[in-house]
Amino acid sequence: MSTTIRILGIDPGLRHTGWGVIEQTGARLVHVAHGVISVDPGFPMADRLGGIFEAVGELARHYGPHAAGVEETLVNANPRSALKLGQARGAAMAALSMAGISVAEFAPRKIKLAIVGTGTADKDQVAFMVKRLLPKAGEMKSDSADALACAICTAHHLPVELKRGAA
Amino acid sequence: MSTTIRILGIDPGLRHTGWGVIEQTGARLVHVAHGVISVDPGFPMADRLGGIFEAVGELARHYGPHAAGVEETLVNANPRSALKLGQARGAAMAALSMAGISVAEFAPRKIKLAIVGTGTADKDQVAFMVKRLLPKAGEMKSDSADALACAICTAHHLPVELKRGAA
Repeated sequence: MSTTIRILGIDPGLRHTGWGVIEQTGARLVHVAHGVISVDPGFPMADRLGGIFEAVGELARHYGPHAAGVEETLVNANPRSALKLGQARGAAMAALSMAGISVAEFAPRKIKLAIVGTGTADKDQVAFMVKRLLPKAGEMKSDSADALACAICTAHHLPVELKRGAA
Repeated sequence: MSTTIRILGIDPGLRHTGWGVIEQTGARLVHVAHGVISVDPGFPMADRLGGIFEAVGELARHYGPHAAGVEETLVNANPRSALKLGQARGAAMAALSMAGISVAEFAPRKIKLAIVGTGTADKDQVAFMVKRLLPKAGEMKSDSADALACAICTAHHLPVELKRGAA
């Protein structure tokens, strides 16, 4: 009998953080939920980061995932953009760590390769394949599609110990 | 009678995060404590960020500052360095926000101007002036000196409402 593993995928951003939860039983993937955490850009920076931390922590407590995957921020952006994205990522990853969840990181190229079969796929191709792999997910914003793609990629790379250990 | 305001300064870094606590009564500044949060670089990234979050939150609870100041990361670094520093900063600022502390951000140039009187001062000049302004602080690492410098800069820029409101 196969165990079922629940996985949370996160695509962090300072303004919009996509998230998606899936379950893996053997080779079968099932959509559980997805959404976007949006933080008011008018708030002070620390409170925007606190908002991301709080919301990601709440997702972790609510869905109780066995593992989480976070999309690595593109580093070919300019340093100022990289710093801002890094801050959002730091708040989200600290929240997952504080919730006791093991976190894997994946480069966008690796996620595209896992979902579409080529590391150079565009956003539309990723969203199309996410909907095909998770037909119950329905329509969604690209932030959520990216987060679900990250969750699927995490499922493909789960360590064997986690697959054995999950209830 | 002047009120006393307690201020926490943070100089975030992925490996070493400097911190310093001072008290301001009228124009008088007093050193309270300082130190460095060091996180094992061998740990997974999420746990390093969780470690920074936890330690900064612990400082906030222990010292109960009325305000906090965080040094802005230099953005003339390369994008990969900016991303890593951003992550450390995101974890630290989320912790301050979750502790309910208002956080000000200061560019290194502004901190140097407040401490030394010129925005182009070097690290040694900043450390020298921090020791002069806070003679009880004694010897310290440069991460702590930078954090105390940030706390002093925060004291200089406190909003009037906070000065009136503090106990």
